[in-house]
Amino acid sequence: MRLRYVKNAMETILAHPDLVIVSPEEHRGIWRKLHPMGEVLHLEIGMGKGQFLIEMAKRYPHILFLGLEKEASVLKKAIDKVDVKPNNLWFILGDASDLCLMFDSDEVDTLYLNFSDPWPKKRHSKRRLTDGGQLVQYQDILVSNGSIYFKTDNRHLFEFSIQMFTINHWRIEELSLNLHEDQDNIVTTEYEDRFTEKGNIIYYVRVKKWKE
Amino acid sequence: MRLRYVKNAMETILAHPDLVIVSPEEHRGIWRKLHPMGEVLHLEIGMGKGQFLIEMAKRYPHILFLGLEKEASVLKKAIDKVDVKPNNLWFILGDASDLCLMFDSDEVDTLYLNFSDPWPKKRHSKRRLTDGGQLVQYQDILVSNGSIYFKTDNRHLFEFSIQMFTINHWRIEELSLNLHEDQDNIVTTEYEDRFTEKGNIIYYVRVKKWKE
Repeated sequence: MRLRYVKNAMETILAHPDLVIVSPEEHRGIWRKLHPMGEVLHLEIGMGKGQFLIEMAKRYPHILFLGLEKEASVLKKAIDKVDVKPNNLWFILGDASDLCLMFDSDEVDTLYLNFSDPWPKKRHSKRRLTDGGQLVQYQDILVSNGSIYFKTDNRHLFEFSIQMFTINHWRIEELSLNLHEDQDNIVTTEYEDRFTEKGNIIYYVRVKKWKE
Repeated sequence: MRLRYVKNAMETILAHPDLVIVSPEEHRGIWRKLHPMGEVLHLEIGMGKGQFLIEMAKRYPHILFLGLEKEASVLKKAIDKVDVKPNNLWFILGDASDLCLMFDSDEVDTLYLNFSDPWPKKRHSKRRLTDGGQLVQYQDILVSNGSIYFKTDNRHLFEFSIQMFTINHWRIEELSLNLHEDQDNIVTTEYEDRFTEKGNIIYYVRVKKWKE
């Protein structure tokens, strides 16, 4: 059943070569060519079902948006949401641990990490997307003045991330311990909508790398 | 009425030269001599009514605890709480903006900032005890490996402080966005007790200066 589910998802993915990229390493260094106005590239890592990225692509047509997702079955749900493919939106089937194989140095302008898996057990902390090892990759693929936007409802993941960012010399540019109280007109994820409807808090931080 | 109140407070203060220091600049560089075991000096800035500092002095008799308070009428309330003066506890009547006149470089091991005035208006931000100007003084009077413990219930002050600390190259050693859920046996302030009884959240961070 599970296998059939993934097989079904892979069929959908392969049927949309105009929307989903399954060999991202072939685009390394030339991603911007995908977009006619290709001057700015934003990447969401762990894009899930795509609501955030699809809305961002609508709001900012001059920016090329890429979404990375490792689960084929999740990516299928994002594909199903796209009726007419915008020319500034692409999905990538791939794993965040391979970012440096997919992107060249200084190739990405902005990264989004939305509601990443908190991996609550300490022995799994290396798998968190804000672990120090991942931050090294982000620093490499981001332009020198590039930002990471990070939001989560998980307090311990947020505390961990703030410490990881600052200890690895990322500068906090913006911080909110209650994003939806502080900002209007937020582009949300599916999970974020469900969560804030319950009255729960979203933590948010935007960071940049200090100049060495 | 107000004047009489302050006059009354000053009378209490001057009647306790064994507990309250009103000319702190005379002790600059020689604070540790106040304590027979004078090896470690901890300073609370804005000690208020003294509950936190009095309890800390009881728990850690080998540490010299100093509490700075600028309001005579508030300091009087702290004095009234001390029945038998412990030999490791002193109060100081003075203003945090004069710290460098009161303390020599590397004279303080640990600083506490508990529920500092949030000064919510942006035009008053320089008055916040975690503003960059104050942090320069803290860096000067603290030993090179010294810590600042900061706690508050004020979200915006906490967000501001995290940004000030990190932008001024203080390293986050410990962080909690819900201190009373994460730690037991906390030494509290009067305000903190009232506030947590209502079920409200206390934010906490401990920072150290990065080596230059």
